[in-house]
Amino acid sequence: MAAAYELRCRECGKRFDNAPLSICDECFSPLEVICDLEAARGTFTREAIAAGPSSMWRYKSLLPVPEDYKPVTPAGWTPLLPAPHLAERIGAKNLYIKNDAVCMPTLSFKDRVVAVALANAQTFGFDTVGCSSTGNLANAVAAGAARHGLKTYILVPSDLEPAKILNTQVYGATLVRIDGNYDHVNRLCSQIADRYSWGFVNVNLRPYYAEGSKSVGFEIAEQLGWRLPDNVVCPMAGGSLITKIRKAFKELIALGLVEEKEVRFFGAQATGCSPISTAVKNGADHIEPQRPSTIARSLAIGNPADGVYAARAIRQSGGWAEDVSDVEIVSAIQELAETEGIFTETAGGVTTAVTARLYAHGRIHPDDLTVTCITGNGLKTTDALAGVYDQEAAIRPRLTDFEAYISQKNDEPELVVEGANVR
Amino acid sequence: MAAAYELRCRECGKRFDNAPLSICDECFSPLEVICDLEAARGTFTREAIAAGPSSMWRYKSLLPVPEDYKPVTPAGWTPLLPAPHLAERIGAKNLYIKNDAVCMPTLSFKDRVVAVALANAQTFGFDTVGCSSTGNLANAVAAGAARHGLKTYILVPSDLEPAKILNTQVYGATLVRIDGNYDHVNRLCSQIADRYSWGFVNVNLRPYYAEGSKSVGFEIAEQLGWRLPDNVVCPMAGGSLITKIRKAFKELIALGLVEEKEVRFFGAQATGCSPISTAVKNGADHIEPQRPSTIARSLAIGNPADGVYAARAIRQSGGWAEDVSDVEIVSAIQELAETEGIFTETAGGVTTAVTARLYAHGRIHPDDLTVTCITGNGLKTTDALAGVYDQEAAIRPRLTDFEAYISQKNDEPELVVEGANVR
Ligand SMILES: Cc1ncc(COP(=O)(O)O)c(C=O)c1O
Ligand SMILES: Cc1ncc(COP(=O)(O)O)c(C=O)c1O
Ligand SMILES: [Zn+2]
Ligand SMILES: [Zn+2]
Repeated sequence: MAAAYELRCRECGKRFDNAPLSICDECFSPLEVICDLEAARGTFTREAIAAGPSSMWRYKSLLPVPEDYKPVTPAGWTPLLPAPHLAERIGAKNLYIKNDAVCMPTLSFKDRVVAVALANAQTFGFDTVGCSSTGNLANAVAAGAARHGLKTYILVPSDLEPAKILNTQVYGATLVRIDGNYDHVNRLCSQIADRYSWGFVNVNLRPYYAEGSKSVGFEIAEQLGWRLPDNVVCPMAGGSLITKIRKAFKELIALGLVEEKEVRFFGAQATGCSPISTAVKNGADHIEPQRPSTIARSLAIGNPADGVYAARAIRQSGGWAEDVSDVEIVSAIQELAETEGIFTETAGGVTTAVTARLYAHGRIHPDDLTVTCITGNGLKTTDALAGVYDQEAAIRPRLTDFEAYISQKNDEPELVVEGANVR
Repeated sequence: MAAAYELRCRECGKRFDNAPLSICDECFSPLEVICDLEAARGTFTREAIAAGPSSMWRYKSLLPVPEDYKPVTPAGWTPLLPAPHLAERIGAKNLYIKNDAVCMPTLSFKDRVVAVALANAQTFGFDTVGCSSTGNLANAVAAGAARHGLKTYILVPSDLEPAKILNTQVYGATLVRIDGNYDHVNRLCSQIADRYSWGFVNVNLRPYYAEGSKSVGFEIAEQLGWRLPDNVVCPMAGGSLITKIRKAFKELIALGLVEEKEVRFFGAQATGCSPISTAVKNGADHIEPQRPSTIARSLAIGNPADGVYAARAIRQSGGWAEDVSDVEIVSAIQELAETEGIFTETAGGVTTAVTARLYAHGRIHPDDLTVTCITGNGLKTTDALAGVYDQEAAIRPRLTDFEAYISQKNDEPELVVEGANVR
């Protein structure tokens, strides 16, 4: 059976058969998977998709996995929610949240990319997989490898959050902490992948891995009733996710599943690691690497592999990029929780704070239909809120103690009207 | 419009109009919601359900919420997953996991019950809601109240896990820590509900709240292709969930949506708080309260409100109950993660360990179709695994250091065959 997808060099266009390969041997540019849209036309229809599973696998015929692959990762089809209370606070009128903090085995969008990468790892015959990670990828690879019965080596910067470390080890993966930042870790992984016959999801399997993020874009369009939004706000680390949501929209347009439209893309970073947003703001075509220093550890990639493509996508789309301080990140985590009942990790704090800023600065029009991407769960970065809330003394289990406690907190509860006091 | 549901006393059968009421004024027995199955017959069909949302709200016409209620909590429709690797380890052949650790706003099944309770809180005109909680309910009420724009008081035992405390405070709820166990907390909440005009989801709104758990049963049946399993293994705290899954199955049978079948129910508790499993094992009709002492804090209810009904349901169904030690709980958390890539909280460790024991003791036949209910996420009780994994020293980002590290760990990586070394 002819593969319905292949690898192609992003710069010189050279084609490659499917293989664990991420760099062009002609021009040393990154490779990308190209799915055969014509071949998918028969199976990638609104009706076929609606009849598919409640997961990212409803879009299987436009994801680079073998046709006979039986999905084992129940990821995706995450909620797209109106966010009226947050909208009101930030001056938006038509704001939606794509919430990848739930409906994911390890509670971040990385389960999507890992699912596609591991499908290919199996095809390529790897019995050992791994990754370099800022945390969420580590969790997703460890859990996915457990489900697939693969051996796993996961390399992370040594300053990772405790919850992300535990959420890697618990699946039985070998976690190797590296004294350095993500860029050091990633370089080491390239060397390991060169030397051992292992599938590193974001190194030699990167082109396959990256396509998994298209499912976010497919879901947004379908959940809007096969319509594209005006704007998407998206966090950026390596810069892949934002480019792949855009690619998904373009594929849907090409297949006639949605009307043609130029969706504006807005990138979000932490100021303490903002190589892509800095390039966008400066109009630079080149990414100046940075040394990360931010609580948004999952976004702390100083030398982003797809940074140039992310900046290009933002510019071409008519969007913009912003970055926010660690203090703003914490406030935004609280604001999103208090308004919409969604607890996100630091990356989601970045996205929420940037979204607010974009409205405040008039970069996004209040009436626009805007989707903001929450990509990870708050329980993964609880340390970011350490010390923010008081741990108050416990009170005795008595009504008088309770009343004294709340009146001291200056809440005056309303006494029930006599007779209506039913229970 | 006539309500399609009403309250009825579980013992004397006295009927009550819908109201924030949980105890019969005749015989002091608990009240229960009875949904009018005949009224639902037209809307609760396989086709209508399939066309509904990917959430528990696809079953809205058999949940006690006002007909015009617009759901704001995107909870449920969680994965039902085959668990082949875990099955192999424990001697099962046809084991499924119902995974409520994901696809829930606050990552436990409690989002289901809170969603139904808050819908009624609004109908009854409450602007303030609350609960007594062993943790998960606190999280769900806090997040749900934020979404509904309600004021919130949440009372918990003072020894709650840090993640569950944070995951309550972040939504802006007032958290009151009580020096006592859940039973003390619950008694205080009853007094507060009597005095103030507040909706306590598991006190004066308890009959509505409890019905939310039926959605677990509806989902299991639909996800099995409108079939009932042979067995369900379910964790028990107050004892409500297990009885409501059974009620859901009975409603489906009554409506002709599934074939009649007596599903066996198996209850799971921690030995350190096992009032219900002890009653089942002793053949007692009465629950002897216990003073809880277990790491499974979410199940630590020593005097369970629905304990008698849970024990009765288990016995009538031909099932059984078991309880496991804290050490077994931790091992089971690890085993589930390593085999199926699912990280659960202590309650899920209880359920998994009990499931294994039931197969080991021949209480469940290997060929039976068994569904085991994972009800909460592992990131909620990370402290239960404190000290289980080494935090090893970081290594330098060099290939030689990596090789030394892994060879010291006694893993001999396979060198790639010359030439196949692609990247
Ligand atoms: C939670 C979260 N959001 C967003 C991103 C950014 O993804 P990308 O590297 O594709 O830009 C990451 C990457 O690690 C992440 O962990
Ligand atoms: C994770 C989890 N599972 C199961 C239960 C048991 O539910 P029930 O009180 O309905 O028996 C609880 C109750 O708090 C819980 O938190
Ligand atoms: Zn090239
Ligand atoms: Zn009665």
